[in-house]
Amino acid sequence: MKLYIGNKNYSSWSMRSGVLLAAFGIPFEENKLRFDFSEGSPWSRAIAALTPTKRVPVLVEDDGFTVWDTLAIAEYVAERHPEHAVWPRDRQARARARSLCAEMHAGFTQLRTVCPMNIEVFFPDVGARLWAEDEALRADVARLDAAWSDALAGSGGPFLFGAFSAADAYFAPVAVRLSRFGLPVSEAAAAYRDALLAHPAVEDWIADAMREQDFIVEDEPYRQAR
Amino acid sequence: MKLYIGNKNYSSWSMRSGVLLAAFGIPFEENKLRFDFSEGSPWSRAIAALTPTKRVPVLVEDDGFTVWDTLAIAEYVAERHPEHAVWPRDRQARARARSLCAEMHAGFTQLRTVCPMNIEVFFPDVGARLWAEDEALRADVARLDAAWSDALAGSGGPFLFGAFSAADAYFAPVAVRLSRFGLPVSEAAAAYRDALLAHPAVEDWIADAMREQDFIVEDEPYRQAR
Repeated sequence: MKLYIGNKNYSSWSMRSGVLLAAFGIPFEENKLRFDFSEGSPWSRAIAALTPTKRVPVLVEDDGFTVWDTLAIAEYVAERHPEHAVWPRDRQARARARSLCAEMHAGFTQLRTVCPMNIEVFFPDVGARLWAEDEALRADVARLDAAWSDALAGSGGPFLFGAFSAADAYFAPVAVRLSRFGLPVSEAAAAYRDALLAHPAVEDWIADAMREQDFIVEDEPYRQAR
Repeated sequence: MKLYIGNKNYSSWSMRSGVLLAAFGIPFEENKLRFDFSEGSPWSRAIAALTPTKRVPVLVEDDGFTVWDTLAIAEYVAERHPEHAVWPRDRQARARARSLCAEMHAGFTQLRTVCPMNIEVFFPDVGARLWAEDEALRADVARLDAAWSDALAGSGGPFLFGAFSAADAYFAPVAVRLSRFGLPVSEAAAAYRDALLAHPAVEDWIADAMREQDFIVEDEPYRQAR
């Protein structure tokens, strides 16, 4: 099984699938396609050959069968590896985990837009300015905080539904954003953010991202260069 | 089991879950909350009491347990009703169906933005103008057409994966948009669009929508009044 990903420093969607597989110790070959959004670039040609959506991540089975989009990948991996609780074993917790992932998948657009993932940089000043000025960002973080706090109160933590599940992999890039932009959250949400950042699969991803030392201008609204 | 939905004429996300349940004959109580986005409206109060995301559809179990978001609802219903092929029985077809639903869930944003669902109205002139002017819309429809054609070629139709599945419920509102705005698609995609519009669960939803005769200004970029 191969997982095609983008730059580890920037690609929050790649991180979700990569962290999920790593956290459960599911063997896979990681194939990184460096972002390059210019016409006819190696990235453009490689991704177009892999998937009609032209987006990472993409999971490619040994027989060439492809699954795209993080949610479909999570469900596929859960089915292929029933020995792992990719989703929580409890039916209601599982439904709640999927509700949160689906909400993340199409929501939190302001947070995603103004605080793009950039693992190697801390932007506390930008974060403070955005926090003061941007009501939609504060609303996204408030909803996130409530969703996390509610799940954690129900499970007792340390992860959303007790043990690490696909829902936590889904929020790993959000923990990075909160941390890098220094956005304020409740004590419960902060403890969960830190538990996520300290998970070995997340730590490994972050360490790889730090080593990339790349600069993709389309993903850098707040820097001119490295 | 109760399904809370918005106006049938406008709420494409409600339609996905409503059509899914109806198509499989799964019994549920339908609760319509009329859209009214003004502060403190009955809609605002009712939806806030139901779900933290303040969005329809919401599935509420007899014991009060809630599942939000169409994707999580589809997975929940599939688990609760294994006697129905809510997802295709074939593993790869199921993964492909989920890939398409996830792609729809977060994608096709131009199509969704400029061609909002409005079942009771035909906008061929608006559609023709948008088609001529809007490259992003044409790109969305081209991708949609390719995705549909590819799945149909693999299954032989009449639905994406042969028999009606959650993926078809997911694209039912898209068939409405293509039809109402008169957007051009290939022969294979047109046949599928028409098969979707002729499905009894879709026909019933459309008939209900036609009877609403409501006007929600936030959902009406192209009309001043009914």
